[in-house]
Amino acid sequence: MATDNNRFQAIISHCKEYGFIFPSSEIYDGLGAVYDYGQWGSELKKNIKDYWWKSMVQLNENIVGIDAAIFMHPTTWKASGHVDNFSDPMIDNKDSQKRYRVDHLLEAKADELEKGGKKEEGGALLKEMDALLAANDFAGLKTLIEKNNIVCAVSGTCNWTDVRQFNLMFSTEFGAVSTEDNEANIVYLRPETAQGIFVNFLNVQKTGRMKIPFGIAQIGKAFRNEIVARQFIFRMREFEQMEMQFFIRPGSQKEWYEHWKTERMKWHLSLGIPAEKYRFHDHVKLAHYADAACDIEYDFPIGFKEVEGIHSRTDFDLRNHQEYSKKKMQYFDNDVDESTGKPYGNYIPYVIETSIGVDRTVMMVLSEAYEEQDLSTEEKKDSRVVLKFPPKLAPIKLAVLPLVKKDGLPEIARRIIDTCKPQFRCFYEEKDTIGKRYRRMDAIGTPFCVTVDHQTKEDNTVTIRYRDTMQQERIRVDAIKDLILKNIA
Amino acid sequence: MATDNNRFQAIISHCKEYGFIFPSSEIYDGLGAVYDYGQWGSELKKNIKDYWWKSMVQLNENIVGIDAAIFMHPTTWKASGHVDNFSDPMIDNKDSQKRYRVDHLLEAKADELEKGGKKEEGGALLKEMDALLAANDFAGLKTLIEKNNIVCAVSGTCNWTDVRQFNLMFSTEFGAVSTEDNEANIVYLRPETAQGIFVNFLNVQKTGRMKIPFGIAQIGKAFRNEIVARQFIFRMREFEQMEMQFFIRPGSQKEWYEHWKTERMKWHLSLGIPAEKYRFHDHVKLAHYADAACDIEYDFPIGFKEVEGIHSRTDFDLRNHQEYSKKKMQYFDNDVDESTGKPYGNYIPYVIETSIGVDRTVMMVLSEAYEEQDLSTEEKKDSRVVLKFPPKLAPIKLAVLPLVKKDGLPEIARRIIDTCKPQFRCFYEEKDTIGKRYRRMDAIGTPFCVTVDHQTKEDNTVTIRYRDTMQQERIRVDAIKDLILKNIA
Repeated sequence: MATDNNRFQAIISHCKEYGFIFPSSEIYDGLGAVYDYGQWGSELKKNIKDYWWKSMVQLNENIVGIDAAIFMHPTTWKASGHVDNFSDPMIDNKDSQKRYRVDHLLEAKADELEKGGKKEEGGALLKEMDALLAANDFAGLKTLIEKNNIVCAVSGTCNWTDVRQFNLMFSTEFGAVSTEDNEANIVYLRPETAQGIFVNFLNVQKTGRMKIPFGIAQIGKAFRNEIVARQFIFRMREFEQMEMQFFIRPGSQKEWYEHWKTERMKWHLSLGIPAEKYRFHDHVKLAHYADAACDIEYDFPIGFKEVEGIHSRTDFDLRNHQEYSKKKMQYFDNDVDESTGKPYGNYIPYVIETSIGVDRTVMMVLSEAYEEQDLSTEEKKDSRVVLKFPPKLAPIKLAVLPLVKKDGLPEIARRIIDTCKPQFRCFYEEKDTIGKRYRRMDAIGTPFCVTVDHQTKEDNTVTIRYRDTMQQERIRVDAIKDLILKNIA
Repeated sequence: MATDNNRFQAIISHCKEYGFIFPSSEIYDGLGAVYDYGQWGSELKKNIKDYWWKSMVQLNENIVGIDAAIFMHPTTWKASGHVDNFSDPMIDNKDSQKRYRVDHLLEAKADELEKGGKKEEGGALLKEMDALLAANDFAGLKTLIEKNNIVCAVSGTCNWTDVRQFNLMFSTEFGAVSTEDNEANIVYLRPETAQGIFVNFLNVQKTGRMKIPFGIAQIGKAFRNEIVARQFIFRMREFEQMEMQFFIRPGSQKEWYEHWKTERMKWHLSLGIPAEKYRFHDHVKLAHYADAACDIEYDFPIGFKEVEGIHSRTDFDLRNHQEYSKKKMQYFDNDVDESTGKPYGNYIPYVIETSIGVDRTVMMVLSEAYEEQDLSTEEKKDSRVVLKFPPKLAPIKLAVLPLVKKDGLPEIARRIIDTCKPQFRCFYEEKDTIGKRYRRMDAIGTPFCVTVDHQTKEDNTVTIRYRDTMQQERIRVDAIKDLILKNIA
């Protein structure tokens, strides 16, 4: 566990040192739980998004994409349940003015009791908490905190406000209205991209002449005012999702739920990550909108954690939008139901959702790729850090390195780059020894390096060096492009 | 002018009818100045972004990308000047509670005077307004409005509040703090992506070992609480930018400013848009950070308007971030200055910015592509709407249409799609006559359609039909993919 945590910290440091991920606004000492993608992180992230889009949209005849705005009409979030339900009971310490999630305070206390040998008391506390939470008994929760003498970690006092609900949506004021009338103009930053798909269901179905079953996919930012945001890019206040809502005939949800579980796991395995690093985690306690749900979890250095969710959302969202908007969210299905001999007719479609976090996928791919290797021999201590990205996801595909900065070698190197760069991202470097340059390319995950040397001028061959095996061989200059294209397809 | 406005309205309608752009949250009657991209608009927009990224980042050895968060540390916007200067004087009508920009009210009045034959009075009014605005004399501005008896368009009264500054940045509250202490936790939604690049300048330069001159590029959302947001996707409250900040040696800004003006105009022309549809518009009144600036304007149906800005920003931003963050924003240049024989040494780099609106580019490409054609012959009235997108930007590259839904033709069509779809976006359709299907593909700008007919089974050829010329010819099935790849490269 300690080693794993070290590994996690090493990955975070590596991400910063090699231009993958920086704390946001770092010159101002950062902004909590927000990160910026640097020159190689942004390419990695773009490649992941492009690969998902290609897999889901380009290769599936019955899935189309959309790109809805982050700002949506506020009634959207009444209909989806987020205004009323997307919140946690919170309590503020009056002395430190720090706010805490009530369940976190109580769980920490139960944990402390348990570790102090009072396992039964800890269990009883959690049980009492669950009952109060279920009953929305805020006064009871406050009493429970005070009774257990739970103190603020900052002030050390037990001087608490009342318990209040705290919504996780960010809000802002919209448009040009008098300050006296602002209530009517609160707009939320979307806490999920899914609703952008639901409110556009009719528009896309009709203008795209889509026939059920069909899907609508979207990649975009979402925002949650997490109280305890942590674990690097795993839980951020600003994050990105890749979601697909698949619209189906009511009654077929079990079959399609299984279909998408299988398909999405295939996608994960296509990243070259072994099956044993994944597991399905079925939700026992289902969200109010779901009749089945599971997560695909990856074995991060901090343990198995959710990367993707697959949810059978029933007709919950479309039905609620119908109710709030008074627009019929119906589909006319003229396929014939064999059991009745008649067309299925009008219905509100059911939905299977696949929802994967972009940033979590980046973190998964980084965690899987990161390797510290001891390359020491009897003569010499040596090591390297290598990111073994699948070539199709690597920020740079090919580095071209002239052995020396003269004798026309840089010019040959640049000609190779000019031939290749319209097809994929290349990198030129002429500083330092070839060995050092290879190491720097290893550290950012470049799968292929070619070195231009004096022999190149004679026989038009270069040395190609493979990142993972560090093996080298001579190949013809005019074979470079195709070799790489084949490996990144 | 009326015709042009009709053309503009026709494009907006077409965008909605054919799944390019919908009003946001349309089922809730929309959200002012926010739009959603539908199934074909999202592909068009993605293709434009990918083309820009490829042109700017992939093809330029000395430009790298980043992807910074929308949320940034609030001090960023103090340093950039947005907290203090990114605002307009506004006034509210007490009866209607509507808010107006003061300059808009006065300009409308001057316009009215002018049209009523009082040209001199109108001119004098504008002159007086300019003087008051320059002096930040808010009381004077209010008096000027009242003196001219300017009334609210809604209430019809002249019952105004005082004039106040109204900042165009959206703000929200961040993190978990007591409500009593919220002031300290105001975070803005970035009003431009540029600052995300400036605050990451040191990180990227050092971890990427970048040598001046070099650029940092970024694509991302920005937000402005526009009071009068209008003209479809031209001025939205939520929009997307593609920006590149090019860091240079002080003193070389004139040369690089001209360089990027030329380069960016080349990019525009590479979209197949004729040169006469563009013009440069030099800024006469420069922004506080600029020593030269111009817009690239395109001749929209609503007139020549800015699509892209090119700005010589001096060291204004980096210098201010240095002052506010106390971090040295310096670069050590060991190239030798020929005039002194010594290295240039330490300096804060100057910056040339190229900043293009994604949504405006979408609108430009749509405006340029949209064509209503009269195809009537003596026998028959006929017409079509066609979007003549450059093939590389078209949402769908190839439609494959079986002549009939039987005789094995759909199977052949699907095999063609299976061969092509890993390379580019394809579309299958078997409903309606071939003629109708061609028209639908014209309306969404698909450059190539192939029809599979009975002859295909005999000689393995299909009819390919070209969108722009509507000409048809037979080609071999195994030549389809390469023909299209050649045309979208």
